[in-house]
Amino acid sequence: MKICVVGLGLIGGSLAKAIKKNTDEIVYGIDINKTSVASALAQEAIDGELTVSELSGIDLVILGLYPQATIDFIKENKQHFKKGGMIIDTCGIKKAVVDIAESELAGTDVSFLGCHPMAGREFWGFAYSVDNLFDRASFIMTPTENTPAEVIDTVSSLALRIGFAGCVTASPQEHDEVIAFTSQLAHVVSSAYVKSPSLLKQAGFSAGSFKDLTRVAKLNEDMWTSLFLLNREPLLFEIDHIIGALTDYRDAIRDNDAARLRELLKEGRELKELSIANTVKKR
Amino acid sequence: MKICVVGLGLIGGSLAKAIKKNTDEIVYGIDINKTSVASALAQEAIDGELTVSELSGIDLVILGLYPQATIDFIKENKQHFKKGGMIIDTCGIKKAVVDIAESELAGTDVSFLGCHPMAGREFWGFAYSVDNLFDRASFIMTPTENTPAEVIDTVSSLALRIGFAGCVTASPQEHDEVIAFTSQLAHVVSSAYVKSPSLLKQAGFSAGSFKDLTRVAKLNEDMWTSLFLLNREPLLFEIDHIIGALTDYRDAIRDNDAARLRELLKEGRELKELSIANTVKKR
Repeated sequence: MKICVVGLGLIGGSLAKAIKKNTDEIVYGIDINKTSVASALAQEAIDGELTVSELSGIDLVILGLYPQATIDFIKENKQHFKKGGMIIDTCGIKKAVVDIAESELAGTDVSFLGCHPMAGREFWGFAYSVDNLFDRASFIMTPTENTPAEVIDTVSSLALRIGFAGCVTASPQEHDEVIAFTSQLAHVVSSAYVKSPSLLKQAGFSAGSFKDLTRVAKLNEDMWTSLFLLNREPLLFEIDHIIGALTDYRDAIRDNDAARLRELLKEGRELKELSIANTVKKR
Repeated sequence: MKICVVGLGLIGGSLAKAIKKNTDEIVYGIDINKTSVASALAQEAIDGELTVSELSGIDLVILGLYPQATIDFIKENKQHFKKGGMIIDTCGIKKAVVDIAESELAGTDVSFLGCHPMAGREFWGFAYSVDNLFDRASFIMTPTENTPAEVIDTVSSLALRIGFAGCVTASPQEHDEVIAFTSQLAHVVSSAYVKSPSLLKQAGFSAGSFKDLTRVAKLNEDMWTSLFLLNREPLLFEIDHIIGALTDYRDAIRDNDAARLRELLKEGRELKELSIANTVKKR
């Protein structure tokens, strides 16, 4: 299978490296940043650079681009994709991308499958890409009624070969709702956390919990602004929900209500334990 | 030096193990839970069990108890402590404990130093104690005008010998204000995070950020209820602050205001980077 990774950033670069390391597939690359292409060639993350017109010989195109760039790339290059070929994206939101990708590719005999590799780092760009980024991570696919079963088989098989721990499927809408909670809300909360005037007094007065809560505040604001605004309703629901939950704790503490506070904390512990058990069961 | 650890839970047990592993000091133990004492003896975390009346021969008493139990133990046993001896506690709040401890011990020739070892686990009890819990952790001391310099020297020297990366000092009030942000708020936010109805859909749809944000939701609700209510004002300030910050993000997303949202995220990234630089500089 001939593969081309378009966008050799953290995710695209890491996918290229993981495919090269774990399989015998041929991997090409395309990036407007020529330094990334040169680095990818030098590190043998790709076998060669392609021009978009050469995509006609590619079986699987992997788009490692931001949401708008993903949509634009499909719109602008639909005449170049191989008949019977496959395209996957790697965006953190799915409905906004999948709807447009499918409508643009309708009638072209090119299959699109929305994908979301559940891994990341608080760094970005090809320089931070690694061949083991996806080890033990989950690979989410959001097929629709238009997605041929063999495309799902081919892509999920590749994901497992390059180190993902497992593949899950969901509708694009379901994906976006859950991701608003598991990933987007985490970035909002972490970013809000560091806004306290107490922040710069923390050195020497913090341990694992502070580090954990604030790690992803170091985020790429361009990418996350786009992801958040493409998933407004589910994310607004989650932000409002945590504001409501925090207000419950705030009121219990303000009222010096030990029984209520203990109950809120106990509920939280039990939910976390249930969530851990649920995750283990799903594996 | 003869040391006695009172309360052989996660922190007390780990301190006993770390002292035994790294020094030649003699370590005794006291706990109302006889299983913990038997385990500590079997694992050689302590050299022997003491009764409270035998505290008269002990140079350094380490209280590994909850805040109220710490206060109660000092009140009930002040006639037993060695003249010229030292007592330290390990509570996560300091002003409420230090004020009472000092007033109870006034005129007894027993020195008290409030301490807070900045380490923990999402498990508790002697069974989870380990001899390396404090490796690379910070050891906070909250001396007052009543604390003899040699007590600070003895305790900080012991902390460094048993694996702490460094010691910092603060007034009890300063400690409580910063800890409300670095530790207490982290536990409140993590506990509030898991209250979303989306929680049980997360298996397969989450990565590091969800895990980090929710790790400490698995907390000991009895201990944290007490810690929160003994530090109400600083904690209420921090909870109100993060609710305000979250509301800013919520409004920007609701208003589809990309420039404002990007600015909020950029500020958060820059503050996190500043905080990392500040921590590195302080080391």
